[in-house]
Amino acid sequence: MSEFSANIPAALQWRGETDGYLEILDQTLLPVRAEQICCRDVPTVVEAIKLLRVRGAPAIGIAGAYGMVLAAAEARRQHLPAAAAVAHVKDRAGELATARPTAVNLRWAVDRLLQMVGSAGSPPDPDQLAESLLAEARLVHAEDRDLCTAIGRHGAALIPAGDILTHCNTGSLATGGDGTALGVIVTAWNQGRRFQVFADETRPLLQGARLTAWELVQRQIPVTVLVDGAAAHLLKTGRVGCCVVGADRITANGDTANKIGTYGLAVAARAHGVPFFVAAPSSSFDLTLATGEAIPIEERAATEVLAPLGVPAAPAGAEAFNPAFDVTPAELITAIVTERGIIRDVGPATVAAVLGG
Amino acid sequence: MSEFSANIPAALQWRGETDGYLEILDQTLLPVRAEQICCRDVPTVVEAIKLLRVRGAPAIGIAGAYGMVLAAAEARRQHLPAAAAVAHVKDRAGELATARPTAVNLRWAVDRLLQMVGSAGSPPDPDQLAESLLAEARLVHAEDRDLCTAIGRHGAALIPAGDILTHCNTGSLATGGDGTALGVIVTAWNQGRRFQVFADETRPLLQGARLTAWELVQRQIPVTVLVDGAAAHLLKTGRVGCCVVGADRITANGDTANKIGTYGLAVAARAHGVPFFVAAPSSSFDLTLATGEAIPIEERAATEVLAPLGVPAAPAGAEAFNPAFDVTPAELITAIVTERGIIRDVGPATVAAVLGG
Repeated sequence: MSEFSANIPAALQWRGETDGYLEILDQTLLPVRAEQICCRDVPTVVEAIKLLRVRGAPAIGIAGAYGMVLAAAEARRQHLPAAAAVAHVKDRAGELATARPTAVNLRWAVDRLLQMVGSAGSPPDPDQLAESLLAEARLVHAEDRDLCTAIGRHGAALIPAGDILTHCNTGSLATGGDGTALGVIVTAWNQGRRFQVFADETRPLLQGARLTAWELVQRQIPVTVLVDGAAAHLLKTGRVGCCVVGADRITANGDTANKIGTYGLAVAARAHGVPFFVAAPSSSFDLTLATGEAIPIEERAATEVLAPLGVPAAPAGAEAFNPAFDVTPAELITAIVTERGIIRDVGPATVAAVLGG
Repeated sequence: MSEFSANIPAALQWRGETDGYLEILDQTLLPVRAEQICCRDVPTVVEAIKLLRVRGAPAIGIAGAYGMVLAAAEARRQHLPAAAAVAHVKDRAGELATARPTAVNLRWAVDRLLQMVGSAGSPPDPDQLAESLLAEARLVHAEDRDLCTAIGRHGAALIPAGDILTHCNTGSLATGGDGTALGVIVTAWNQGRRFQVFADETRPLLQGARLTAWELVQRQIPVTVLVDGAAAHLLKTGRVGCCVVGADRITANGDTANKIGTYGLAVAARAHGVPFFVAAPSSSFDLTLATGEAIPIEERAATEVLAPLGVPAAPAGAEAFNPAFDVTPAELITAIVTERGIIRDVGPATVAAVLGG
């Protein structure tokens, strides 16, 4: 953890023991207000994930893990017998895992906790179940913190001199630690490197302007926001040494789904010979998929496009095209930074070598 | 002029004779309200150009021309003697021509009217001056209408089957006629071609969502708005047959300055083998500049980026990078459509051949 991390409110935090609650920083209100919401049941967590109160592939994985603890708490509040409690938790696991379709960390974390549940044939005692789920969720959270630290260390050694361009938000608001792509940037800064961070505003939901800029201002790292359409022009000026972005899902060949706009940025970076790095934990890899063409792309509501920040901008009668993610093919990625090391010459063999797949 | 043009309010209109006024549709209020403002003096016109109440390279050229008529009217209201009237009009010409730096049509139109003013040595009678300026401004306006028609006809013959992706606004709100790039699209539609128009929203000022979508809805042409960052992903789907954009200034080699985001779109179009067309009148060419590197790029206020539609989105302490335009090099442009014909294999020789430069 960096020396500055204490200044940055966590994206989410478990409060209390098995009868506690999940506190989520409502990111839809940032940077205007930093307000927490208390989740004491699964529907509140699912809603928070769907409405992007908590977002970022690693953070929603952690939210899913704590959601499983809340599922067990629901079963105890309803005094369900052991077998029914297991069935209830499994039902809730399905709701949590499918709250958003693209990021793989969510399903990964929920599945991991599901393994603690056992079968309805020999169900654990509900109290014991709650305790083991909480312990595992805390482990998922703590591990993600450590993953960020390792990703930051590997990535900081990799990035060249020059300013850095990033997209969307991949910092402490998106993870359990200092971040993935933003963790690389923060680590490099804390090591004494000096640069300007350029943050694509990242329409439609402006995570770059709202969240990345907010985190960097808190850390006193200079940040300049630009509209997504200005990125290619910025790259042409020659001042950007590299692009670093996160990932929502990476397939066995290294194709990377990430926030819409990432693919166009990668194409522009290649056109200017600017290295393009992806930073993500191994839990963002989906080795069951051979290529990015198999990744489901979430389509979100038209209003995100037609009414920026809730203000109507387009006329009645206009349609919207609003994919939340796009896929950057492996050949446009200079390297993928994981907690296990760096994947260069990105492809099935190099991914397998680092992931141990 | 197309059969539908009557439905579309004009971007600007001269009302009355030499003692009349310039009526400008305030585009900053669209699509929520369609309100006109009356300009009876040059400062009101300059303000309207600076604040983008009227925008689009051809339209601000026309506004500049009528602004010269208002300069003469100011001189008459002040009962200036002939030589002083000429000096006043020349002063005002400087203010008009520099209201925005990138589009060349503005200076082109003002310079054209300035030629009517003559020298202070043999000044024209102020009444005569006003009449000749109004006649010339009306000619600039009418010519632009005809240019749009010719550009539309040339361009419609050029564009392939498939949906069409455009950027910013280049329609009747940006010109004196049906538009440049949008004029091509409207002409093709009116010829019976059928397609979907994809309109980049065009941050920061959302001319695509606000203006292009509005014009197309009025014309009952199907329009789908997307965030600028989604364009590369859309191109990857294969449904877009071509991109068509306008121009603010084109240099002797065909390099094209246009709204920020155009360059990144051209890079993405090339990566997908999608033809990329520029549509612009000959008045958008600046043959005094050899290449696009010499084009001054207007930097606009940070608040356009940091507070979309006036709503603060970024934290205090964040800077903004806000170039209003970028330059697309000639090698990324499949063809430039002008009223004089189509420039293919874009370069100094082909530009000179069509422009007669």
